[in-house]
Formats: sequence, C-alpha cells, structure tokens
Amino acid sequence: MIRIGPLRLKAQMFCGQETAMGPGKADLLDAIAREGSISAAGRALGMSYRRTWLLVDTMNRCWKEPLVETAAGGARGGGARLTGLGQDILVHYRALEQRVAEIADSAPLQALNAAMRETPKPAQ
Amino acid sequence: MIRIGPLRLKAQMFCGQETAMGPGKADLLDAIAREGSISAAGRALGMSYRRTWLLVDTMNRCWKEPLVETAAGGARGGGARLTGLGQDILVHYRALEQRVAEIADSAPLQALNAAMRETPKPAQ
Repeated sequence: MIRIGPLRLKAQMFCGQETAMGPGKADLLDAIAREGSISAAGRALGMSYRRTWLLVDTMNRCWKEPLVETAAGGARGGGARLTGLGQDILVHYRALEQRVAEIADSAPLQALNAAMRETPKPAQ
Repeated sequence: MIRIGPLRLKAQMFCGQETAMGPGKADLLDAIAREGSISAAGRALGMSYRRTWLLVDTMNRCWKEPLVETAAGGARGGGARLTGLGQDILVHYRALEQRVAEIADSAPLQALNAAMRETPKPAQ
C-alpha cells in the first residue's frame, strides 16, 4: 500500500483468480530475503505460519518459476531464500509502485487534497 | 478499480478513518448523475438502500461541501443530483485514475506480465 497524504494506492497482479503479487506478498518476499526463513519472515510480519505458507505457495504457482526456494533440512529447518526470479519480480513490483507513487504531484491529486476536510464532519 | 491485463489498481482518498473517495463512491456519483435519484442509483449498482445512503452520507461529510444534494420532496421522493463540488471531485478522481492507468506501458509492468503464468499451477 502506497500512502501519499490522504491517498492510498494499491497495485495487485492477478493470475486467474489468485493474487500473484501485491503489497502483502512483496513485504513477505522482503522479509524472507532478510530473515532467511519463511517462518521467521511470517513472525516478523505478525502472520500465522499457515497464512505465510499459503502466500508463498500461491506466489510459487503463479509465476513461470518459483519465487521462493527452501533449502534441504525440511520446511522449518533448512531456511529459505528468494530465487533469481523472486528477486527480479520484487524489484519490478517495487519499481511499479514507484511509478504509481509519482502521481503524488499531479494536478488532480492536488485539487482533491485541497477540497477534502481534515477530518469528517460527525455523522448525524 | 482500474484493470490493465492482470494488473488491478485501486486509488482511495481517506479523510481520517473514512473513505472520502474510491472506485465504488465514484461509480455511485456517476450513477446519481445519470439516474437523478440516490435510490435509483443504488439499484442500478445492485446496492442496498441503506448502503447507498451510507456512502452518500460519508462523502457529504468528508469534503468541504456536500457532493450530493437532494431536492425537496423527501429523501425518496424528490430526486438528487451532484453539487458543483461533486461534479468537480468526480472529474478530478477520474483524472487521477487516468494518471495511474498511464503506467500500463511502463517497463516494470511489462517485465511482470512476461514472467507471469496464464493461470496458476494447481495447488498440491
């Protein structure tokens, strides 16, 4: 999720009915690269073990090659890392988000910002 | 919601915790302008009467002036139309969506499209 003042922008890539990439999956790839383990990455993001693995499984089924690979030693024991394609997809997705974020200084956004209240009027 | 092949982009404007403008509210403004009535607009979009009015109420509380005004004759009887500000906000929001959509031909999106499968591999 990109936040620019009151604007929130969300970019998702769909493969059939499944989300191949989006803000949550990109954050998970970042966390796996940093933590070296799927379960540690999930913990760092406050996600359940099951949900973390479901997201990884979906990513690995939606692209032409898997994005995450687990090392020998079992699912919990051997660690995990991004594949070459996983690294590439993460870079491209962040670049896509950056392109989306560049509308921050566009005239329509400035016009919308100028007309919005700071906080909503209370409901009556 | 903007769809560009497998990419879905969503732009929302928040006022505090409330959504001041987004794809659903913009479609509702379009429908009110077309139908001349809040309840007819809700029906055209398949929304409940209650939900339609909640969306209008939120919009009318989040901007410096109301976006929708109802004519005399009661909530159901007198019809509704966009205010001048309502028309302006809708134009600016659609222009913002157009700016977002212009990333369709960006290099990162092309790279992502090229690496995605047509359909997910089945779950195992």
